Amino acid sequence: MSILHDFPGFLHGADYNPDQWLGTPEVIDEDFRLMDKAHCNTFSIGIFSWSQYEKEEGNFDFTWLDDIMERCRTHGKKVFLATPSAARPAWLGNRYPETNRVDETGCRLSWGSRANHCWSSPVIREKLALIISKLAERYAKHPSLAGWHISNEYHGACRCPLCKKEFVDFLKKRYGSLDRLNECYWSAFWGHRYSAWEQVDPDDRTIDLAQLDFLRFNTQQVLDFMRFEIEALRDYSDAPVTTNMMGVFEGLDYWRIAEACDFIADDCYPTWYKGETEAMAARYAMYHDMHYSMKNKPFLMMESCPGIPNYKPYCKIRRPGEFEREMLLALGHGADGTMYFQWRKGRGNCEKIHGAVVGHDGTDRTLAFQRVADYGAKLERIREAAGSAIRTETALIYDWESAWALHNTKGFGEYFGDFSRQRLIETVCAHYQAVWTHNVPLSVIESSCDFSSYKILIAPMLFMMKPGVMEHLIRFVEEGGTLVMTYLSACVDEHNLCFASGNPGGKMLRELFGIWSEDIDIFEPETKQTLRLTGEALDGKTQFDVLRRCEYLHAEGARVLGVYGEEFYAGTPALTVNQRGKGRAYYIGADTGLDFLEAFYGNLLKENGMEGVLPELPRHVKATRREKEGKRYYFVQNMSDEPQSVRLPRPMRDIWNGTPSGAELLLPPCGSAVLLDS
Amino acid sequence: MSILHDFPGFLHGADYNPDQWLGTPEVIDEDFRLMDKAHCNTFSIGIFSWSQYEKEEGNFDFTWLDDIMERCRTHGKKVFLATPSAARPAWLGNRYPETNRVDETGCRLSWGSRANHCWSSPVIREKLALIISKLAERYAKHPSLAGWHISNEYHGACRCPLCKKEFVDFLKKRYGSLDRLNECYWSAFWGHRYSAWEQVDPDDRTIDLAQLDFLRFNTQQVLDFMRFEIEALRDYSDAPVTTNMMGVFEGLDYWRIAEACDFIADDCYPTWYKGETEAMAARYAMYHDMHYSMKNKPFLMMESCPGIPNYKPYCKIRRPGEFEREMLLALGHGADGTMYFQWRKGRGNCEKIHGAVVGHDGTDRTLAFQRVADYGAKLERIREAAGSAIRTETALIYDWESAWALHNTKGFGEYFGDFSRQRLIETVCAHYQAVWTHNVPLSVIESSCDFSSYKILIAPMLFMMKPGVMEHLIRFVEEGGTLVMTYLSACVDEHNLCFASGNPGGKMLRELFGIWSEDIDIFEPETKQTLRLTGEALDGKTQFDVLRRCEYLHAEGARVLGVYGEEFYAGTPALTVNQRGKGRAYYIGADTGLDFLEAFYGNLLKENGMEGVLPELPRHVKATRREKEGKRYYFVQNMSDEPQSVRLPRPMRDIWNGTPSGAELLLPPCGSAVLLDS
Amino acid sequence: MSILHDFPGFLHGADYNPDQWLGTPEVIDEDFRLMDKAHCNTFSIGIFSWSQYEKEEGNFDFTWLDDIMERCRTHGKKVFLATPSAARPAWLGNRYPETNRVDETGCRLSWGSRANHCWSSPVIREKLALIISKLAERYAKHPSLAGWHISNEYHGACRCPLCKKEFVDFLKKRYGSLDRLNECYWSAFWGHRYSAWEQVDPDDRTIDLAQLDFLRFNTQQVLDFMRFEIEALRDYSDAPVTTNMMGVFEGLDYWRIAEACDFIADDCYPTWYKGETEAMAARYAMYHDMHYSMKNKPFLMMESCPGIPNYKPYCKIRRPGEFEREMLLALGHGADGTMYFQWRKGRGNCEKIHGAVVGHDGTDRTLAFQRVADYGAKLERIREAAGSAIRTETALIYDWESAWALHNTKGFGEYFGDFSRQRLIETVCAHYQAVWTHNVPLSVIESSCDFSSYKILIAPMLFMMKPGVMEHLIRFVEEGGTLVMTYLSACVDEHNLCFASGNPGGKMLRELFGIWSEDIDIFEPETKQTLRLTGEALDGKTQFDVLRRCEYLHAEGARVLGVYGEEFYAGTPALTVNQRGKGRAYYIGADTGLDFLEAFYGNLLKENGMEGVLPELPRHVKATRREKEGKRYYFVQNMSDEPQSVRLPRPMRDIWNGTPSGAELLLPPCGSAVLLDS
Repeated sequence: MSILHDFPGFLHGADYNPDQWLGTPEVIDEDFRLMDKAHCNTFSIGIFSWSQYEKEEGNFDFTWLDDIMERCRTHGKKVFLATPSAARPAWLGNRYPETNRVDETGCRLSWGSRANHCWSSPVIREKLALIISKLAERYAKHPSLAGWHISNEYHGACRCPLCKKEFVDFLKKRYGSLDRLNECYWSAFWGHRYSAWEQVDPDDRTIDLAQLDFLRFNTQQVLDFMRFEIEALRDYSDAPVTTNMMGVFEGLDYWRIAEACDFIADDCYPTWYKGETEAMAARYAMYHDMHYSMKNKPFLMMESCPGIPNYKPYCKIRRPGEFEREMLLALGHGADGTMYFQWRKGRGNCEKIHGAVVGHDGTDRTLAFQRVADYGAKLERIREAAGSAIRTETALIYDWESAWALHNTKGFGEYFGDFSRQRLIETVCAHYQAVWTHNVPLSVIESSCDFSSYKILIAPMLFMMKPGVMEHLIRFVEEGGTLVMTYLSACVDEHNLCFASGNPGGKMLRELFGIWSEDIDIFEPETKQTLRLTGEALDGKTQFDVLRRCEYLHAEGARVLGVYGEEFYAGTPALTVNQRGKGRAYYIGADTGLDFLEAFYGNLLKENGMEGVLPELPRHVKATRREKEGKRYYFVQNMSDEPQSVRLPRPMRDIWNGTPSGAELLLPPCGSAVLLDS
Repeated sequence: MSILHDFPGFLHGADYNPDQWLGTPEVIDEDFRLMDKAHCNTFSIGIFSWSQYEKEEGNFDFTWLDDIMERCRTHGKKVFLATPSAARPAWLGNRYPETNRVDETGCRLSWGSRANHCWSSPVIREKLALIISKLAERYAKHPSLAGWHISNEYHGACRCPLCKKEFVDFLKKRYGSLDRLNECYWSAFWGHRYSAWEQVDPDDRTIDLAQLDFLRFNTQQVLDFMRFEIEALRDYSDAPVTTNMMGVFEGLDYWRIAEACDFIADDCYPTWYKGETEAMAARYAMYHDMHYSMKNKPFLMMESCPGIPNYKPYCKIRRPGEFEREMLLALGHGADGTMYFQWRKGRGNCEKIHGAVVGHDGTDRTLAFQRVADYGAKLERIREAAGSAIRTETALIYDWESAWALHNTKGFGEYFGDFSRQRLIETVCAHYQAVWTHNVPLSVIESSCDFSSYKILIAPMLFMMKPGVMEHLIRFVEEGGTLVMTYLSACVDEHNLCFASGNPGGKMLRELFGIWSEDIDIFEPETKQTLRLTGEALDGKTQFDVLRRCEYLHAEGARVLGVYGEEFYAGTPALTVNQRGKGRAYYIGADTGLDFLEAFYGNLLKENGMEGVLPELPRHVKATRREKEGKRYYFVQNMSDEPQSVRLPRPMRDIWNGTPSGAELLLPPCGSAVLLDS
Repeated sequence: MSILHDFPGFLHGADYNPDQWLGTPEVIDEDFRLMDKAHCNTFSIGIFSWSQYEKEEGNFDFTWLDDIMERCRTHGKKVFLATPSAARPAWLGNRYPETNRVDETGCRLSWGSRANHCWSSPVIREKLALIISKLAERYAKHPSLAGWHISNEYHGACRCPLCKKEFVDFLKKRYGSLDRLNECYWSAFWGHRYSAWEQVDPDDRTIDLAQLDFLRFNTQQVLDFMRFEIEALRDYSDAPVTTNMMGVFEGLDYWRIAEACDFIADDCYPTWYKGETEAMAARYAMYHDMHYSMKNKPFLMMESCPGIPNYKPYCKIRRPGEFEREMLLALGHGADGTMYFQWRKGRGNCEKIHGAVVGHDGTDRTLAFQRVADYGAKLERIREAAGSAIRTETALIYDWESAWALHNTKGFGEYFGDFSRQRLIETVCAHYQAVWTHNVPLSVIESSCDFSSYKILIAPMLFMMKPGVMEHLIRFVEEGGTLVMTYLSACVDEHNLCFASGNPGGKMLRELFGIWSEDIDIFEPETKQTLRLTGEALDGKTQFDVLRRCEYLHAEGARVLGVYGEEFYAGTPALTVNQRGKGRAYYIGADTGLDFLEAFYGNLLKENGMEGVLPELPRHVKATRREKEGKRYYFVQNMSDEPQSVRLPRPMRDIWNGTPSGAELLLPPCGSAVLLDS
């Protein structure tokens, strides 16, 4: 199933902001000439155009957009037209200050910047509904309209009295009674018993559940706002809607936002610094897999950078092959299109240095333009692969509420707040990478998803057990699944309350894993620890280094596969497995390096009879597979700076580079191929 | 003299917050069973319970506390009942916002967190007096009541109009006239002449005396508030009172707070990371000695952690022996009891991960519980030692006002503000450690204490000379004492004004030391400097490395014991001594390593005929001595991770481990013993 | 031309703040005795004295200043009397809070600190005009009055409603219409179109031109305020005026401030840490050259420190020779006087530890006093050199507006904001040092200066092309000049808008340099890059390391002198030259080390027939030359810690150290000399 049912190939294009060039129409003429030359077919338009549509309150002018849309029609471009909520006009912020957000300190922000309006203000909703309905009415039937780009990178929160009142309503609905809230908030501690709902302060850093609930509430507010925007369109247009997500952005539970999207769109800005390529590729592959998993269908990489983003610590010009590899990474992991921010660099303002397809020189001579055009041309060669599906038997869990619970729990040494967040994401990425490196496809899901279609389920540091999750995990194992969890998993319930009957997960998961985790040892770098396998070697090794974090485990029925090698708890369990029903539950008590995880999952995949999509790939070559109508498309990528030779299991055709069928694939440094298993 | 005249042994217990478990009475039943099992005899109760006693303004309910007190009685537990000022109820902060503090920026804080009420608000005093008197009336005669725990970890300041007015009154009283204030504030500089008292801004960072005076004022405010709390008890109860201090916490001059306490209590949360054990033990030993010195009698370690605190950069599970060693360090340095924060981990909220005696699993199976119970049992074996005294002939000075003066003086390179504070405390600790390592007992006092009972007085970086101190120092030396001071000593008077007649200490101390300190050289790490002894070697060395700070000294009568080895001032004095009357005054001009200090003090102790409490201990074994009714109790501790064998001067009995009398003591890694010199 | 037409020698003195000692007149007596002894002839007085002159509003008392001025007269001291705006009296800030500044968050600051009044407040102007006119009336004719010290170290900005209104007026004047402003602000991007002038927020960090314009505006406000202060003097006094600048302080475009000054004054506080001597000396030499260049006549080093500043990370006592070398560095680069902050250390307050001529001991025995007195005596020996001129044929550009544009442009990796500022200044200093090291004199100018008198013009990272500058650069080259520019030059116009026709500088400069800079590669330290010369070696090397930043260049007519050695763009141009008219334009595309720059400029100077002021100096000996009435004075300085022997081209006399004429000069470590070419 493709993103757009009436579009046969891959989408390729950019955010296009012609409002910057209305005074120089020759630039716009040139834009469309270059768009054709770059094989671009799709554009996001109007994201920041409200103040251009409505220069004065109530005076609307869409003539310039009429012109752009007409050009799109004649040039055969598809358009995602934006609802323009991401940038209120200055007059709106200044005339109606109640539309500006209030921050944590209680200050009403001034207008300025962008995407900073209050979620609750009736004024912003009234003004926005008007402009959206005008846009929808005017362009709903336009032949170029492919869909609606709802707002842009939703983020942030507001603490104005209206929003605070909504937070109170949220709490009332969630907890029913103050007594229940006090119980869940564990407010008897530090004398925090609330005698009125309004006393709950979302910024009282001493109450971790207040932080967590405010994040939940804020996601609900944003979702409500997004639905309001969509609603304003629906009188006129049934075109698909989406909004652009940002990986594992902390501020919003994207699984909830996904509910309002017809398809998923994401913004991706990786960096490719020396020595970090595979970890970075794995991280973005994980994001892509999550976006595919959200709807179990292809998604759109809505923003990426053909040049150099303006906010990175280093801004390396992309090395040969690097750009194409980044784009094909997305396609291989389920994207049905890749787009850029933005088409042409503006001359001024905050993103004038941010890479774009067309630079300040305005020509097609640049490396950036040439690589985009070259990629666009190749993309057309593989158009048949658009809409192809990914099949997985393994899933990895990254869960927003669980992450919030962990980040807001004070404790675990340095593992608090932003730092804790980094460690969590690093850990989840490491587990992902350890499977990915074996070229086995994964789904990336949240903990409340259905697990029944998977053979292996991996839940690293899944700190919170949302309602029903423990039951689902147990049933998953009992019915034959293989579950892997780690240290700092199943510590709290949905209220961020620790389980009263021991970890992991109180009685239920202690029994599932056959262990009791008494405590966690979080130590300084000077302390050395190892994990020693009690049975046969993995990847030829029986001992692995362990870093920072070790849970002190007691086997309560589990089989001990590995023990600690050092310190007073040498010999106690570090890695266990427990049989339950038809399945098995593994527990990794120690924070290991990638070496252990690769070996562990390599073995686990083998035991489950799961193989990489292509066998015997060189170490630094990665492959994914998409399928459609009986055809299998293999996306093969060289993650190294050395050429790689790949022996194929059978003659295959590289439809990306247009080389004839053969049993050997030669990949240049950073090189990519799309093989057809015909 | 013991802490409690009617309690024969050591106190052992914890903060107990049963308000968290009122909904699960079986937990409370289990608590008391486990308390007995852990040999705990004392609990601090009600610290954060105001909102539990008075859920709605004016509606009081103590029935749950009645139950807890009754259980304590039947189980033979002593109780320190708290005045509940450390956590105002939400209704109080919200209904009476004037009880919330105003911060440095002039913002009135919201309720939330804890221990953040205004010191001056009549409302908070009115409401607090009522609840305190109700508690006192109800429990004054309760057989379990051992004393009153006044508030909790007093800290912070308020800048509301009421408090600012009190600050003005403080200034008026202290300076008498604006002219005098202008003189002391040296306000002619930078045109800061005040023409009204109200113009003095405690947060004008350019006026160092304003900072200093605000710290003085704040201590006075807190002391006044504490006395108000005590007063509210006294109609009903004469039980002893205390409040829990926090080492050398910057914010309050604890010698002033001590004046309102019947005995001293302290909260201690050391960390035991690799390579830092002895320095950390010395630091806490110094705190303990200060708390003993404050009343010259045993104190109570009111809070410590049987597990892992939730706010440390690393959270290592305690290694075997480590917990016991930490507890015995306190006892050996004069504690008559050790208590924990807290008895049982709560399931939620900000300290749910903070180590406690009973964990989330609720059992007695954990390492934490077992070590506490084991310690508690042993503690009963040595109960006869409770109330024993420590005798010292050496004193070290750490003075709050002097520290404040130094921290708020801009200058001395990196030595400003928090960094300066760290350097000062490191230096004071290093001098302490250099004596402690010789197993010679110290008092730790402030500069206005009586020096007459000491043979040796050490005042590192005693920057400020409070009124009369110079005279006392001179008399101390003239009467035969040995005084040691260092660089950055005696630079300013009580108004943080530099002495006009040269350093150290103007004419008076220049004569005492027979030197003039012209300037201080504070250099980068790339510059190397040494101290070279002019006479015989110390510990076999005649040259020691010097770091960061060297005063440029001129001998004016002093004997030069060491000179600098490098740079343009090579050959000038670095270490001097001056005879005055019957005594001697040493001046250490250079910031040396611990190697020099240990050698220097080793020699000085020998010259003064002072020996360690036990002779010829191995390098990493430390000992202290407490005495009572002719008996001498030696607390001996292995500070290393290796076993140690100690040859005793005579057969002694280890009453801690219950081993028979012998002339050799074998200590396991981290091991401790209590020897009876019978 | 000297600073003071009626003063024949070098000025030598200090800020003198006797208001600190009015209560101890014997100190003032001693001051004047010591001033004579220290050979000091000039003092800045009254900088922070407003609250001393006018203790209560409207009550003036100048008797104490009368006394000081009379003492100055009898002791033959010159006085720069200050307008006292740098420190408002407390009563003024408190009674008229509208004179306090409003900060970025919209908060009105309290009084306190200093130099923090609003620039627009009518009240501050009214009160200030009164006190200034009283001072001017009283002392205009005083024989000691040498000039007026206007305020002190102007800095900071105000966002009060009055200042904001002035900002709006500034914008109206600059842009004429809102449409033009919207165009220049590139406000179509991110939907920032302004529909009213007041909507422009100087603190909206997303609009870089708003930042830039606010900096321009603030300079204009300060200049207006300074002119107001001068105006208040002019009814009574025609004495020269100045204000003290602070090197390349970000906050003010000092070329604009210079317009109001009769002569330039500067505050200099270098540090002399190991290994940094030459770079630090070059940096301050560059500042000095800029101050000379501003008026093309000698300037005054108004503040420096004879001891140790109180705010440096390390506070090393000055090593022998170091102080004198620092002073002579200023004289050699065109200072006609050096003064200190301050004469005597105050006993209290924020700068009590800051080095001064007289210390707390009050004697002439200190190293600080002795070196000042020794320097003062020697200064009198060379008085004939005062007023001598510096001749240059090379100029370096440091341009404030260009710097602001770069710092406020988001992009270029880590090169944003303060960090970008550091990198820019480091780069400019490196280019300066690379010429300075050849002992060739430079002017340091802004980009709108007249270039016609120079042979070589160096413009490193001259990011912005102000109006007319490109035309001037082209004419400079066409008429025979040699121009050197670098990466990140000529990227934007005066509105911080990128050039639409490629870099550098669009069509005009692309043609001048014969290159197109397609992009810039800003890479992590792990990536290695080199510059390889295509022709003959420089300093014996054909390859140089390159760091961090490489522009990707295309030769469009230029001759390629060097190419990159690594990465995918190996072999592309890194260093080019283009002939244009009679001159040549060099472009350095790579961020090289000092080794390359020294070799490059050494060669360039040779090609242009420019030699150092003294030939064949040892590597670490630096020389400058000043000329007057046919005499040439050579300031020669040993920048190393080793003695140096200098072979002179002809016998010369060292009038500084008073040694007879000879052909060899022996310089001790840190030693300085002044040679007369007679």
